[in-house]
Amino acid sequence: MKRLAVLTSGGDAPGMNAAIRAVVRTATQQGIEVVGVRRGFSGLHRGELAVLGPRDVANTIQRGGTILLTARSHTWRSPEGRAKGAQVLRDWNVDGLIVIGGDGSFHGGHYLQEEHGVPVIGVPGTIDNDLYGTDHTIGYFTAVETALDAVDKLRDTGASHERIFVIEVMGRHAGHIALDVAVAGGAEEVFIPEDAKSVEGVVEIVKASVAKGKASSIIIVAEGYPGGAQGVADAIQNGTGLETRVSILGHIQRGGAPVSSDRVLASRLGEAAVYALMDGEKGVMVGRGGGGIVYTPLHETWEKRKDVNRDLYRCAKTLSI
Amino acid sequence: MKRLAVLTSGGDAPGMNAAIRAVVRTATQQGIEVVGVRRGFSGLHRGELAVLGPRDVANTIQRGGTILLTARSHTWRSPEGRAKGAQVLRDWNVDGLIVIGGDGSFHGGHYLQEEHGVPVIGVPGTIDNDLYGTDHTIGYFTAVETALDAVDKLRDTGASHERIFVIEVMGRHAGHIALDVAVAGGAEEVFIPEDAKSVEGVVEIVKASVAKGKASSIIIVAEGYPGGAQGVADAIQNGTGLETRVSILGHIQRGGAPVSSDRVLASRLGEAAVYALMDGEKGVMVGRGGGGIVYTPLHETWEKRKDVNRDLYRCAKTLSI
Amino acid sequence: MKRLAVLTSGGDAPGMNAAIRAVVRTATQQGIEVVGVRRGFSGLHRGELAVLGPRDVANTIQRGGTILLTARSHTWRSPEGRAKGAQVLRDWNVDGLIVIGGDGSFHGGHYLQEEHGVPVIGVPGTIDNDLYGTDHTIGYFTAVETALDAVDKLRDTGASHERIFVIEVMGRHAGHIALDVAVAGGAEEVFIPEDAKSVEGVVEIVKASVAKGKASSIIIVAEGYPGGAQGVADAIQNGTGLETRVSILGHIQRGGAPVSSDRVLASRLGEAAVYALMDGEKGVMVGRGGGGIVYTPLHETWEKRKDVNRDLYRCAKTLSI
Amino acid sequence: MKRLAVLTSGGDAPGMNAAIRAVVRTATQQGIEVVGVRRGFSGLHRGELAVLGPRDVANTIQRGGTILLTARSHTWRSPEGRAKGAQVLRDWNVDGLIVIGGDGSFHGGHYLQEEHGVPVIGVPGTIDNDLYGTDHTIGYFTAVETALDAVDKLRDTGASHERIFVIEVMGRHAGHIALDVAVAGGAEEVFIPEDAKSVEGVVEIVKASVAKGKASSIIIVAEGYPGGAQGVADAIQNGTGLETRVSILGHIQRGGAPVSSDRVLASRLGEAAVYALMDGEKGVMVGRGGGGIVYTPLHETWEKRKDVNRDLYRCAKTLSI
Repeated sequence: MKRLAVLTSGGDAPGMNAAIRAVVRTATQQGIEVVGVRRGFSGLHRGELAVLGPRDVANTIQRGGTILLTARSHTWRSPEGRAKGAQVLRDWNVDGLIVIGGDGSFHGGHYLQEEHGVPVIGVPGTIDNDLYGTDHTIGYFTAVETALDAVDKLRDTGASHERIFVIEVMGRHAGHIALDVAVAGGAEEVFIPEDAKSVEGVVEIVKASVAKGKASSIIIVAEGYPGGAQGVADAIQNGTGLETRVSILGHIQRGGAPVSSDRVLASRLGEAAVYALMDGEKGVMVGRGGGGIVYTPLHETWEKRKDVNRDLYRCAKTLSI
Repeated sequence: MKRLAVLTSGGDAPGMNAAIRAVVRTATQQGIEVVGVRRGFSGLHRGELAVLGPRDVANTIQRGGTILLTARSHTWRSPEGRAKGAQVLRDWNVDGLIVIGGDGSFHGGHYLQEEHGVPVIGVPGTIDNDLYGTDHTIGYFTAVETALDAVDKLRDTGASHERIFVIEVMGRHAGHIALDVAVAGGAEEVFIPEDAKSVEGVVEIVKASVAKGKASSIIIVAEGYPGGAQGVADAIQNGTGLETRVSILGHIQRGGAPVSSDRVLASRLGEAAVYALMDGEKGVMVGRGGGGIVYTPLHETWEKRKDVNRDLYRCAKTLSI
Repeated sequence: MKRLAVLTSGGDAPGMNAAIRAVVRTATQQGIEVVGVRRGFSGLHRGELAVLGPRDVANTIQRGGTILLTARSHTWRSPEGRAKGAQVLRDWNVDGLIVIGGDGSFHGGHYLQEEHGVPVIGVPGTIDNDLYGTDHTIGYFTAVETALDAVDKLRDTGASHERIFVIEVMGRHAGHIALDVAVAGGAEEVFIPEDAKSVEGVVEIVKASVAKGKASSIIIVAEGYPGGAQGVADAIQNGTGLETRVSILGHIQRGGAPVSSDRVLASRLGEAAVYALMDGEKGVMVGRGGGGIVYTPLHETWEKRKDVNRDLYRCAKTLSI
Repeated sequence: MKRLAVLTSGGDAPGMNAAIRAVVRTATQQGIEVVGVRRGFSGLHRGELAVLGPRDVANTIQRGGTILLTARSHTWRSPEGRAKGAQVLRDWNVDGLIVIGGDGSFHGGHYLQEEHGVPVIGVPGTIDNDLYGTDHTIGYFTAVETALDAVDKLRDTGASHERIFVIEVMGRHAGHIALDVAVAGGAEEVFIPEDAKSVEGVVEIVKASVAKGKASSIIIVAEGYPGGAQGVADAIQNGTGLETRVSILGHIQRGGAPVSSDRVLASRLGEAAVYALMDGEKGVMVGRGGGGIVYTPLHETWEKRKDVNRDLYRCAKTLSI
């Protein structure tokens, strides 16, 4: 292996730069040259590539976003797009491709390999933590911390006004962020897509909470929960008559300097991705599991379901009394 | 003067606790007892009062919100409400009242004094900085910092995706927060209620920005600007066809540990309010101006208009090239 | 089981309040009363106990320090001290004791149980992460984040002045914090007590780093490394003649609002400690391992050695090129 | 005026990049070209110059440190050094020089202008706030915030252990940072170089504080106070026998993303420096005073003394009861 390419694709996540840096420096140390692809698969199809050396990634480990830029491209969905991408990689004499992103990006990588034989390694980079095959994804820890910081702030004002705050956090179809934020934020209740419980129950919870002397309440809702925060807030307002405010945290959860856990995870997985290619692996995602590095076929990362931590879900309930 | 009362009213603001602490400790040092009123004017009318000593405010200077709680009460609007409040203060042998809040709260204080002779001193506590008679209001600096932190995060993701972000910040009818955040956040454009410029102009700005090679743009909109962030974003999206996202920061701007500037301002103004009462002042707000403490009649604080810093507004334009 | 006691002991760690809260609320939900002991073992021996209800721990999950106070007591070292402590627990009709702290605290708990039959459960609360039997200890994540934030700041000034910064982080006899901070902080080199490598080698590293065009360097030193940061800095200054600054981060690493990972870990382990007592466990620490809760005999937590992550140590080296 | 040069010199300060950006963009908008000098006066004397365009300063407003690098150079002290620097500026056809730094840097600028006729404008960039002629200096607000954050953290651990913390903050020969941090941090006492009060008094203060029921104390000491934090701590330890810890915050106070107040101040002063040169001003520092921009002869900035805010100093005393 003489040369590999790396790209970031899909929604950006804090820690992607740390992963790029780890790929570049590990490869360089192993005598492999790295080519960076800009703007994900769309950039690949347009030939936006350039060689990356160790100094090009200096002072990036603490930066949010991705220096390679990203795009929510759909060009990988067409056979022509994939053929063009494979041709670009051949033109650049690339022996393998590392894709940092989420399940959409892994689909692109999977088909590129299936159809054109390019060895592809996935690195899980998404704030949603919704990929099977890794304990956590790069960006998840920072997103949780950003959301938690907002919850702490909202609790200040909620407590002062004795209000109920219903806070919607990201996570796509998964409740991981919501669950961690609910436990860490001391929320009264949490709604996640993985549990179909009725929104009606929250009315009783809030009433009981008031009866216990709690003057304010924090309710966390995952964006994937049907109806979202607004639906939950409407149910509370109608059922209790109490002043209820909605806060949708939105895109701030994607940005900011990555926290240490994301930087360390990204460094480890970026390194592991290079070693995987060197070891002849392909079509797998490198993840962290059982304290070490594990490989999972790319298609399993989206086909298999990663459940939320059910013990934590129960714990959230216990601690809200 | 043997005893004074203090209350917080209206929207909470970071630094209100620092102001309460300063009132309690300054008064105590001067041999004056302090009674804290809970839940603003509604609490006053219901008789929710209790003596506050120096230890009761220990370890509160860094806390967001208000330990006295607050409410957006309208009970002060009725003559009966005000008569009841004045009676409660007489029952508690209170010689003066310190009101920490914004213009609604100052209205309440003003009429209480006019009709019932209670000496009232206002302390400007609102994130909006929209009170005439003080360079800054307590909570303003923290709100700007929180909004700026969000802008920094959104720029990470905006730059990675080469998107336009239109961000709405608080400020009620005023553009102070928006303007400081725009300059400090390096925004391309800022929309404030104080300037009636058309939203159409932003289309040309964004187009010119793209032509100059800027891949992403940050646009700041004050909540008081007609149409808000959504209106601006729609104009950009329609006029340029570029991917445009809206982020409404909302209530997080009210919470959080106060930054140093708010703690220092609150400490100075809380102290000054006690001295003002001792000096026989009444019906005035204590503010900071010209590097020292200034008094302004309560009614002027809302009757006179505090303009945004026009030099800074011009500077925002210059620096966005 | 009708009543249990909880105390915090030794150095305080962010997340201890979240653990106390979890103990109180889980026990209450299970119909068990909780008695809080103030000031650790010294307070126990002096009888400083009080009942804690669910509302007493409201709004504490985000607070640094410990609401129960702590002390680096040595009273547990004497048989008389332990006999007195056991008597106090009997007087208060306590059926079990939960000790939140590090190895010194666990020694105290261990002997209390061995000699007086009090069922004791340990909860790992220390920023140092130096206890065998748990992946992480409560407070560790926050300490790493605080140290990393300082490293990011020092890099700003180091890069501007093209200086070398040698930064000493906490960790007692262990290098866990140093290693995570080195990887996440993009350090050139890290010195930990677990590796006896000579300080002389760093001179070559720094020289090579300068030759590669790096204008500044960050070197992380664990406080347990012989000679500390000063020793390393002296070697660099003498060996290279380059301007070298030492920064010893100190006690700030113990404080601050706990990050989400510490709050979640503390919530889970506090809950698990109550369940362990209910299940008849005693003399064990509850820890997190393999994704679930694991029990380890108290004496093993200090007798067995918890090594640093050797893969990460190697990774730190690779990524510093 | 066709071309101006800009440099940063002396200790770096957060917001220097915002000032550079403002200089570049204001000048460009006015049709003036900007040349950036790297590494301050030493770089000037070595000819390290390069043209800077508006895009070169994109995405820098939020960065700590200085992209132009800095050095604590003494080359400006020699007549030969200054002659060489003036020659370089002539070679580059520079019509004026903007110096961002503190009093050492302004000395350099002053003599360059006196001896060689180069129009020089100073921009106050130092965390110490020790320059006469401006309410605040660029970097000051961020340094205060960083120090305050550390104080908040130390109070968590101080309160949990019921300890006394003596914390040393920066400020060179001035007590500005110490005073703001003391008021905002709720410190029991503050020692600044501007007041020669004996360290012995603090022993009585701490004893009285304990008698009043305060379990922990925070004492702030400016680095310029004779004996520093260690001297104060020794006096307390010896005089009270209470456990006393010293924390010297050090260089972290120089780094980090600038807070909004520093970014806004830097933007305004950078803009004003260009306008000053265009207006034919020279040998002056641009500062903020009375709500607007003021000019002060460079030599007055170090000859005249800027006192600490005496009202605030008194306030610190009042609020510590």
